[in-house]
Amino acid sequence: MFGDQRVDRELDGSAWLAAMLDVERALARAQARAGLVPPEAADAVAAACRPQLYDAAALGRQARDAANPVVPLVKALTAQVPRHAAAYVHFGATSQDVLDTAAMLVTRRALEPVQQELAAAADACAALAEAHRDTILAARTLLQHALPTTFGLKCAGWLVALDEARAGLAAVPLAVQLGGAAGTLAAFGPSGPTVVRLLAQELDLPEPTLPWHTDRVRIGQLAGALGVAAGVLGKVALDVVLLAQTEVAEVAEPADGGRGGSSAMPHKRNPVGAVRVLAGTRRVPALVATLLAAMAQEHERAAGAWQAEWETLTEALRLVGGAAATTRELLSGLQVDAGRMRRNLAASGDALMSESVAARLAPDLGRAEAQELVRAALAEGRPLRSLLEAHTTLNAEQMAAALDPAAYLGAAAELVDRALSAHRSRR
Amino acid sequence: MFGDQRVDRELDGSAWLAAMLDVERALARAQARAGLVPPEAADAVAAACRPQLYDAAALGRQARDAANPVVPLVKALTAQVPRHAAAYVHFGATSQDVLDTAAMLVTRRALEPVQQELAAAADACAALAEAHRDTILAARTLLQHALPTTFGLKCAGWLVALDEARAGLAAVPLAVQLGGAAGTLAAFGPSGPTVVRLLAQELDLPEPTLPWHTDRVRIGQLAGALGVAAGVLGKVALDVVLLAQTEVAEVAEPADGGRGGSSAMPHKRNPVGAVRVLAGTRRVPALVATLLAAMAQEHERAAGAWQAEWETLTEALRLVGGAAATTRELLSGLQVDAGRMRRNLAASGDALMSESVAARLAPDLGRAEAQELVRAALAEGRPLRSLLEAHTTLNAEQMAAALDPAAYLGAAAELVDRALSAHRSRR
Amino acid sequence: MFGDQRVDRELDGSAWLAAMLDVERALARAQARAGLVPPEAADAVAAACRPQLYDAAALGRQARDAANPVVPLVKALTAQVPRHAAAYVHFGATSQDVLDTAAMLVTRRALEPVQQELAAAADACAALAEAHRDTILAARTLLQHALPTTFGLKCAGWLVALDEARAGLAAVPLAVQLGGAAGTLAAFGPSGPTVVRLLAQELDLPEPTLPWHTDRVRIGQLAGALGVAAGVLGKVALDVVLLAQTEVAEVAEPADGGRGGSSAMPHKRNPVGAVRVLAGTRRVPALVATLLAAMAQEHERAAGAWQAEWETLTEALRLVGGAAATTRELLSGLQVDAGRMRRNLAASGDALMSESVAARLAPDLGRAEAQELVRAALAEGRPLRSLLEAHTTLNAEQMAAALDPAAYLGAAAELVDRALSAHRSRR
Amino acid sequence: MFGDQRVDRELDGSAWLAAMLDVERALARAQARAGLVPPEAADAVAAACRPQLYDAAALGRQARDAANPVVPLVKALTAQVPRHAAAYVHFGATSQDVLDTAAMLVTRRALEPVQQELAAAADACAALAEAHRDTILAARTLLQHALPTTFGLKCAGWLVALDEARAGLAAVPLAVQLGGAAGTLAAFGPSGPTVVRLLAQELDLPEPTLPWHTDRVRIGQLAGALGVAAGVLGKVALDVVLLAQTEVAEVAEPADGGRGGSSAMPHKRNPVGAVRVLAGTRRVPALVATLLAAMAQEHERAAGAWQAEWETLTEALRLVGGAAATTRELLSGLQVDAGRMRRNLAASGDALMSESVAARLAPDLGRAEAQELVRAALAEGRPLRSLLEAHTTLNAEQMAAALDPAAYLGAAAELVDRALSAHRSRR
Repeated sequence: MFGDQRVDRELDGSAWLAAMLDVERALARAQARAGLVPPEAADAVAAACRPQLYDAAALGRQARDAANPVVPLVKALTAQVPRHAAAYVHFGATSQDVLDTAAMLVTRRALEPVQQELAAAADACAALAEAHRDTILAARTLLQHALPTTFGLKCAGWLVALDEARAGLAAVPLAVQLGGAAGTLAAFGPSGPTVVRLLAQELDLPEPTLPWHTDRVRIGQLAGALGVAAGVLGKVALDVVLLAQTEVAEVAEPADGGRGGSSAMPHKRNPVGAVRVLAGTRRVPALVATLLAAMAQEHERAAGAWQAEWETLTEALRLVGGAAATTRELLSGLQVDAGRMRRNLAASGDALMSESVAARLAPDLGRAEAQELVRAALAEGRPLRSLLEAHTTLNAEQMAAALDPAAYLGAAAELVDRALSAHRSRR
Repeated sequence: MFGDQRVDRELDGSAWLAAMLDVERALARAQARAGLVPPEAADAVAAACRPQLYDAAALGRQARDAANPVVPLVKALTAQVPRHAAAYVHFGATSQDVLDTAAMLVTRRALEPVQQELAAAADACAALAEAHRDTILAARTLLQHALPTTFGLKCAGWLVALDEARAGLAAVPLAVQLGGAAGTLAAFGPSGPTVVRLLAQELDLPEPTLPWHTDRVRIGQLAGALGVAAGVLGKVALDVVLLAQTEVAEVAEPADGGRGGSSAMPHKRNPVGAVRVLAGTRRVPALVATLLAAMAQEHERAAGAWQAEWETLTEALRLVGGAAATTRELLSGLQVDAGRMRRNLAASGDALMSESVAARLAPDLGRAEAQELVRAALAEGRPLRSLLEAHTTLNAEQMAAALDPAAYLGAAAELVDRALSAHRSRR
Repeated sequence: MFGDQRVDRELDGSAWLAAMLDVERALARAQARAGLVPPEAADAVAAACRPQLYDAAALGRQARDAANPVVPLVKALTAQVPRHAAAYVHFGATSQDVLDTAAMLVTRRALEPVQQELAAAADACAALAEAHRDTILAARTLLQHALPTTFGLKCAGWLVALDEARAGLAAVPLAVQLGGAAGTLAAFGPSGPTVVRLLAQELDLPEPTLPWHTDRVRIGQLAGALGVAAGVLGKVALDVVLLAQTEVAEVAEPADGGRGGSSAMPHKRNPVGAVRVLAGTRRVPALVATLLAAMAQEHERAAGAWQAEWETLTEALRLVGGAAATTRELLSGLQVDAGRMRRNLAASGDALMSESVAARLAPDLGRAEAQELVRAALAEGRPLRSLLEAHTTLNAEQMAAALDPAAYLGAAAELVDRALSAHRSRR
Repeated sequence: MFGDQRVDRELDGSAWLAAMLDVERALARAQARAGLVPPEAADAVAAACRPQLYDAAALGRQARDAANPVVPLVKALTAQVPRHAAAYVHFGATSQDVLDTAAMLVTRRALEPVQQELAAAADACAALAEAHRDTILAARTLLQHALPTTFGLKCAGWLVALDEARAGLAAVPLAVQLGGAAGTLAAFGPSGPTVVRLLAQELDLPEPTLPWHTDRVRIGQLAGALGVAAGVLGKVALDVVLLAQTEVAEVAEPADGGRGGSSAMPHKRNPVGAVRVLAGTRRVPALVATLLAAMAQEHERAAGAWQAEWETLTEALRLVGGAAATTRELLSGLQVDAGRMRRNLAASGDALMSESVAARLAPDLGRAEAQELVRAALAEGRPLRSLLEAHTTLNAEQMAAALDPAAYLGAAAELVDRALSAHRSRR
């Protein structure tokens, strides 16, 4: 319930199996192009690299004995090819070459719907920011009313963060991995670098400076970018949950199809989407930590740290994917109660205008004294207007402006426009 | 490949479904005993609480809409009972009551094979400690030879830690959870506490002081105990991997059935069991962190933190279970090369006896000077015997003893016996 | 700003230095009692074990060269004793013996004020629970009003969790560590186990089954207990912050001495104590993860994992200590607005009574239909009373009770009493 | 002992104080340029922004009451300026503006020596890679000898990873933060965006699209990049510790000044630098997790999550800084024993050539059978040469090449050159 079907489909056992077979196929083809493997052997290998020929679950079980799934896969694949081609299956590669390159393919495939959902969530934010460019509500610091702001600016904040998270994911450097067991490409003779280049072409993946079997910067950066995306999605969901509180009630999630019901309380309308996002995203930082801690890998292949990456990375992609899709969904249908926003703001009375009033008092009284007067007036329930009357020479219009939340929005609208413009230029 | 079949079976979707139905059944029965539900209604509910009547996967998908799986389950369960019993399904309970109590059942059921495997691993350690009570090898600090010790003492160290980890898991306080949506038991009228007591009886779970819907101490303590168990298993596996290194070669994993093979290098005999343990256990601390961070739960039910527990706890149990089983397996068949241990020790020559020699020099020369002389001798390749000859009045026998690793084992054998005796008293 | 002076004082560089010297002194004395060290040498060592003789900062810098602070300390200590005693300084011990035992002392000393603060915080909860045994407020699930409960029961929940956290910390097994470099006690000849026993006596610490240099169960369990304590403190603070929100305003922190002020907004009354607790406690789970991950320590002394414990454990103790003290402080002066609690509850109108009403409708209509009717009535804004009138035969009094939040508190008061009684029996 | 003086100096209390004052000064100047503040007031404020006027420790203590250090700092700063300027201190800013912008300054300043150390460490790697371009040693997978490789390629792997980590840190987007309490810049009237632009100019920091008070992408990305750097440094140190093991002894740390001594064993030469790096870096992933988890910040300022960043970020910078400096130090003086590398390799005998031999047998026998023959020969201790003689038509020279590790290095040298060239182009 924390994932998303489109993303999950790229991450399950079949998806990993397909990716590993894609690597084996591409490897045979690259080697054929490099003249290391007879074309007909490469064709035979390629023909055998169809997932439906293999039992992903059985291979998974057999993976125990080698502590990696490529060993049984290569055995099964070899059994599928004619004898003449058998020697060319997985030729010169090591398990890690296949698994790491497959991880890159799985990541690229899973990130595609993730990025689409993030983009769509950002679009939904943009629409909200535009629609509510001038919808006033209370800004809250430490969960206390602070100053007036606009819901448009709030959404613009989400928008910018979502766009940044998306850019971060797009910047993660994927790359083909091929080095053989030692990273020397020894089995390919002098053709090693050529095979790497051709394999990269076959799979449309960048070619790295060196084999990266125990240089896990890519995985670490991917982890970091997923962690950032989770953080941004969690921030949006947290705001939604807080705004949807019974006492605040400024937004509600879309209520289609009985969502948000309770087993005990028929009246409840729970922010279930945001709750799922919060539940999913709060699990990601620890997964990132596991992946970063796993970067210290021994020598030319790690004894544990590498193997710890597989499910952890899959899980992080799954959780970010699910959270992105749910966030898009909930933002797209978010119900905004502008009237309630204004009423909640008004309930704070003068308090939200204290900075505005203090600022007008400060030139004459000094900042400290101005603040003290305001604090005292609020504490005693005296209207701030009385302070302005006593200590300033503002006219009626200026007085009204000093006390009108809608006149104290600063650059909110301009900032919304800036965020929208930045978003448009990213699309 | 990081789990264990017996443990995994208690943790999958079906196991959770079965546990939730067990709770619903027990709740109906407890309420019948309390006089809140007609006995025939309770019987009807109980009869419908058979997992095979439900589609775990479909319920999982429907869980999205309520952000919890109990809501669709209660709906499906209600559809299975006759009309007269429908009002008594899940009566007075909230989703969290069912899920939290089910989590306790799942935990108890999964911990049973986990504890058995830990106990069997400890037994295997005990057997090794006993068999190698006097097998001498180099103690290593910072991965450098330090002093002589025995493999028996090393195994005794693993043994004590495994027994402590087991005791830690056994001490985790499980408890039934029942409070209704607010934790007040309001729906049960005056019978609330009675229903809690009877439900605890039905499920053979302790009764807590209060409903613990947002008091997650139990989950936190369970997490901690799992983290400790993972740490202990990881320590054993790390030692095995290090001892199995090509250059050390003091132990090897059992080689049954082609285990430890490599896709590229036919000669390899990899410590695959230990690698799987290291891979699995290094993922646990982050899961513990997620569970501990999730203890800060809002009001009477959390918006995200509670929901983050489910898969995380399941995963932690799965990984510890798999690591325990694999550790038992690898310790049971561990191949120990006592000759190699002795040869590795001997290769360090006098160096391992430096403390022994320095201690004999110290009374006369002072500790600092004694150490300095020893350091200089070792650095210049001079035998330590020459120092003893020059600066002490030891006779030949005393001299030999001062330079014999086997005579510098201190209380190793006594400590082994102590650990074995403590282990026996725990069984 | 996240710590507490009394706790911090037990954790700083001087405290660690003092603890290490306490171990060296106790070691010399134990060895004198065992007849390994001349009494006057032991006295001389003991006399030199005064912290004021050493420069903690300088020793800290010198620690770099040995990757541990004991090496330079032993050197400095040796320089302080007369020549006759020099050979008996740190005799037979290894750095880890001193540092691990010192860690136990530091932990015991720091936990004392921590436990006092936790106990005082629990007392404050108990007082609140008693005072507000019947103060009604809305229970909130997923931050939505759910059912009525009492503030007393809420505080009782905090109370039970605080008491459990305290018990968890008290149960952590401390123990003396002494094994020498290999854990064999070889340097002590046949007296090894005796020296351990006497050292344990000197320091009033339990004696472990074996030296625990690379059995880090103690540290892992301590970490877990600190993580649980942090989780409980974070839960209390989270509730306080949420209850203190401008729109909720049911509690406020004590306002002594200008606390909670803002640099920009003079009117703000921020829940600064709770914010500090939330900030401090949310850093603890990751520290726990670091400590648990560090349990996999190589052979007889770890190359990195052990050294990673020191500052991490200190930091976890510091943060839990600070959070405990702040929680005690804020609970002791918590301002509770019972009127606002009741008004917030009333604002939800009939909604909070939906379970109560549905339960009364269910016997006749079936649970599903009853819930559907209630949902529809709430959605259309029709009073629930109309449903009771239409579908039940309740009399006026029963009708009023069915709709009165104060009559739907279940066992809240009884549960409060149970928590108070459990608390009293723990004191 | 885990930090580095140059880096630590940019991170301590004084450094933070100085950075906050830098922000206040720059703010006053920017506002003067924008015409919001009289130039002489700005000058007065700027003059008061000298760290030596303030007591960092006292401000730290006072920070408790506001849960942030800016509130007392602004008070103290205001007390330092003449009355005419008092109203212009911190004008229109909120605590978070100052603290977040100061965090950017602190980060930039601390990263400077960190990046220099990383660059110098990479240079040292480059020198090692060049010097040992053809130094043969055993590649190890799962800590087992696998195939021959070169120490040059190993160092090239470290080099590429270090350069990638450095590039990752350089790419982290810093930015000025200024928004006022609500992020609207309201206090500046229409000049808000201008003030932001000028403030960015004053501090030479980029201007963000929006105020980022609760958009923590920057912090998350910085955390991720620090985590990646820690992972890379940890990988290098782990390899060094493993290569320095007594049984391997292929490298040793520089032995200047008594480094690596032991309190008990005078002969020890511990890899203390690598141990410090491993200890420091293994604490970083959890700090990253804390920072990522803290990204979900409430509304316009978080209640706890933001405050949790400060010490965590500081600590992460400190630990990465210390690890970078130590890595540079240890790599610069690394003692490499090429003879021992060759002897360790030779000790594996034919085993390391199994892939080479199997590859030559495969064309005729098929890969599976070839591997099986090799495996059997190794298991039975028969020389692989016999297989080549029996199953191939290789001539003597080809036979020798098939069995010569130095002839089975593939593209190792070419890959070293590629890494060196990439490094040079980065400088």
